[in-house]
Amino acid sequence: MYSFSQVLRRAATVNGRGVATRFLGRHTTWTETAARVPYLAGALHTLGLAGGDRVAILAVNSDEYFQWLFAIPWAGGVFVPVNTRLAPEEIVYCLNQSGSRVLIVDDTYSGLIAQIRGELGSIEHVIHSSDQAAAPGCVSLRELLARSAPVPDAGRGGDDLVSICFTGGTSGRSKGVMLTHDNLVVSTLQWAFEIGVGRDDVILVVAPMFHLAGAINAFAAAVLAASACIMSRFDPRLVLQTVAGERVTKAAVVPTMLNAILAHPDFGSFDLSSLRRITYGGSPISDTLLRGALKALPHVQLYQVYGQTEGGPIIAVLKPADHQTSGPTAGRLASAGQMIVGTEIRIVDADDQPVGHDVVGEICVRGLTVAPGYWNLPEETRQAQRGGWLHTGDAGCLDADGFLYIVDRVKDMIITGGENVYPQEVENVLCAHPAVFECAVFGIPDDRWGERIHAIVRLREGCSVGRDELIAHCREHLAPYKCIRSVDFRTEPFPLSGINKILKRELRAPYWQARQRQV
Amino acid sequence: MYSFSQVLRRAATVNGRGVATRFLGRHTTWTETAARVPYLAGALHTLGLAGGDRVAILAVNSDEYFQWLFAIPWAGGVFVPVNTRLAPEEIVYCLNQSGSRVLIVDDTYSGLIAQIRGELGSIEHVIHSSDQAAAPGCVSLRELLARSAPVPDAGRGGDDLVSICFTGGTSGRSKGVMLTHDNLVVSTLQWAFEIGVGRDDVILVVAPMFHLAGAINAFAAAVLAASACIMSRFDPRLVLQTVAGERVTKAAVVPTMLNAILAHPDFGSFDLSSLRRITYGGSPISDTLLRGALKALPHVQLYQVYGQTEGGPIIAVLKPADHQTSGPTAGRLASAGQMIVGTEIRIVDADDQPVGHDVVGEICVRGLTVAPGYWNLPEETRQAQRGGWLHTGDAGCLDADGFLYIVDRVKDMIITGGENVYPQEVENVLCAHPAVFECAVFGIPDDRWGERIHAIVRLREGCSVGRDELIAHCREHLAPYKCIRSVDFRTEPFPLSGINKILKRELRAPYWQARQRQV
Repeated sequence: MYSFSQVLRRAATVNGRGVATRFLGRHTTWTETAARVPYLAGALHTLGLAGGDRVAILAVNSDEYFQWLFAIPWAGGVFVPVNTRLAPEEIVYCLNQSGSRVLIVDDTYSGLIAQIRGELGSIEHVIHSSDQAAAPGCVSLRELLARSAPVPDAGRGGDDLVSICFTGGTSGRSKGVMLTHDNLVVSTLQWAFEIGVGRDDVILVVAPMFHLAGAINAFAAAVLAASACIMSRFDPRLVLQTVAGERVTKAAVVPTMLNAILAHPDFGSFDLSSLRRITYGGSPISDTLLRGALKALPHVQLYQVYGQTEGGPIIAVLKPADHQTSGPTAGRLASAGQMIVGTEIRIVDADDQPVGHDVVGEICVRGLTVAPGYWNLPEETRQAQRGGWLHTGDAGCLDADGFLYIVDRVKDMIITGGENVYPQEVENVLCAHPAVFECAVFGIPDDRWGERIHAIVRLREGCSVGRDELIAHCREHLAPYKCIRSVDFRTEPFPLSGINKILKRELRAPYWQARQRQV
Repeated sequence: MYSFSQVLRRAATVNGRGVATRFLGRHTTWTETAARVPYLAGALHTLGLAGGDRVAILAVNSDEYFQWLFAIPWAGGVFVPVNTRLAPEEIVYCLNQSGSRVLIVDDTYSGLIAQIRGELGSIEHVIHSSDQAAAPGCVSLRELLARSAPVPDAGRGGDDLVSICFTGGTSGRSKGVMLTHDNLVVSTLQWAFEIGVGRDDVILVVAPMFHLAGAINAFAAAVLAASACIMSRFDPRLVLQTVAGERVTKAAVVPTMLNAILAHPDFGSFDLSSLRRITYGGSPISDTLLRGALKALPHVQLYQVYGQTEGGPIIAVLKPADHQTSGPTAGRLASAGQMIVGTEIRIVDADDQPVGHDVVGEICVRGLTVAPGYWNLPEETRQAQRGGWLHTGDAGCLDADGFLYIVDRVKDMIITGGENVYPQEVENVLCAHPAVFECAVFGIPDDRWGERIHAIVRLREGCSVGRDELIAHCREHLAPYKCIRSVDFRTEPFPLSGINKILKRELRAPYWQARQRQV
């Protein structure tokens, strides 16, 4: 058995003088971090926290957020990081659904409390984690610390719950994924092994820490006794400046971020020589963007990471050696790589029967770090894990060499005239058009075909292109039944999920208002 | 949950054409290995093997041994690798104590069966794993396969038992350490992360596979889908020849092996340029040997590995960067490095209370992969794991930077005139004498001092030195009470344990025959 507290103690023992966190120019060592955590845990004890109680966090990334991720388990609690991009009623849902007793908010979100306080059934205390005076409905952390004392590690670990992470909810209501201490430590170790990072790394944490894709970078800094360079918001220029200034060696981005960074006019004016590795994932990447990244960052090793909160979180990794833009293995660039150590993948048909090579079906996974299930949702857990395999909801296939090709979300599949079309394939073709900056493809109601393939497109600055040209471009590269039939152009940004996935659900809704879409 | 079967399937999926095993010039791919295993498992089912049944192996290292390590769990069994260097009655003890139903022997050990068959209480069948006719008391594998069929994976994994490994027993009776599927997979992953090996490695397996120190190299080849280069016996010239011939990249040795390799007259005549990493451990290493290795193999990264079967098995690693022979951190060369990821170390006094930096006490450990206990020995398990910490029986201390210094086995400590002396410190000094090849130091009865410090010394070829000169050499480097009082010279090799540790128990016994030594 192992625990988050042991992770922290080890980091302080083997690299006490090392910089644990870098945040807005503030460097904090592992010794300092390990010294602070028992005080924060003491504040939770003052509020009556007991073993296994849930403590939610609603805050932007910061070094203090990082410390809470260790202080809550140290106090015996389970941390529930809340997606800050949710609407207030969705936040209330996560807090109530997790049965959290304590909520921690920062200056950015403390103002929300007065608005939602009355709807929070289980929350007994809201801590305003700040140097400022407490917001209405909150207790000030400073004042709380003044009447608390540091406490010893509560000693939970192993199979004890350490976190409940709510899924992004790009489709349907968000579910709380249960994660244990061993689960998160081993998955971080798997990740670190596959990516090849170690104690000397300065790991950029710019994806939000309320999502495992961001948080695993923070956990890795601790498990490896390395350094986490934490950013509270994504801004492409600020990322470039931070990488150069803090000599970041490893960054994790989602494709929309990568696109914005590479397209930034100041991209060439920063010294990015410290950067050795970039992991990307969280949503599909277009071939155009990927080739652009390989060209723009020739000294950086690129790793595509495929996973989901329930799934370990990492399921497959496409290694730098498999990022060939030409030659016999160039086709692998379109894949998500191979299953990582400690993980097994299989593809099944609609009857849950395994299919052969190159046949598309639902991606299922089992392995060392698959989450034990959804919090308080036994039926959803049973359904997702039927037959001992986690059903990811993603459609894909495995080739004869074990490379995984992800086609799309099973639920996003369009059925048009009896044919199955996965939007991602169409989006890939559209994004290859020089005028297209971003796009989203989905099915809309059609009396003749059931569903008709529709695209919403954002053009590159200064570019213009018409509907007919885009349709002709599709016809050049796709079977006729996969081609878009209609296009809407849009200038404002796409609605994004917490992890910067395009929220197709929101884009699609207006077209389906009149009728219920069949799933 | 994960399993040995999943490890094998993954290796065959992601690197099917890769060479799994290299043995006496025979290369076998992962696809071939994964195809063979269900047949071997079928043979076990033909003999009536059921889930959780123990299957013992008594054999020298080979590619077939490697396949049995996967076939037994595939069939639902628990493998019990037996130390081949034990006396027949000790072998019988391990087989009976583990309650094994089936025993697998190779050509080297099949002859023993007629002699011990009558004493084997639980063994129902002995498989002679060979192309030859079955030895008396055995069933031929070939014949068994002819009346068997391949079977599907039994599906055990996670916290299910996968192996019972008997401890070396350098002191006292051997105990069976229980290891689970997840336990061994995660510990192999920890090891691979710390050592930095991956799929491209050719890993030498020359230490016996019946011991985890050898077997973890074989497991790593499978977990990483890399290549295991297996040798059936240790011979320094053969090791050099194999490293050169198979382009071995990673070797694991115990100090006695390293000493023999470096001292071999043909050392300089082989191309060892493929070798990138050597792990050494299993017993104390002298400063002289370590400096000699650094000098003789400047292109190789050296990792000292400290652990024990019960302990994960790896507890601490001294990394290449900490192998400095001069400068401010040169003192770390005498350490076993820092605790690895997923592991926590503490040092306790005789009352199990933690001690401060630089204070010698018993090394205790807890972490992800500590073994759940001893097979059928609940009292020994409780005693070893009291307070939630595994007590290693090793004496050592931690410095302020978390470096672990191992002093000796707690039980090997000599009490002379009321002072505690750890033999290893004295051995280190003796080995630094240019005429000394190997030595063993221990306490022998003394009417005045209780115990008196005695050494048995093997000299280098062509060297000679007298008792007085060695005592004078000790006085130069040690406090007077730590100096040897008597010496015996010896030309024949020392008795060695399965993992090539010097068996002090045997060396010491004749001196204590007249009385019971106080422990």
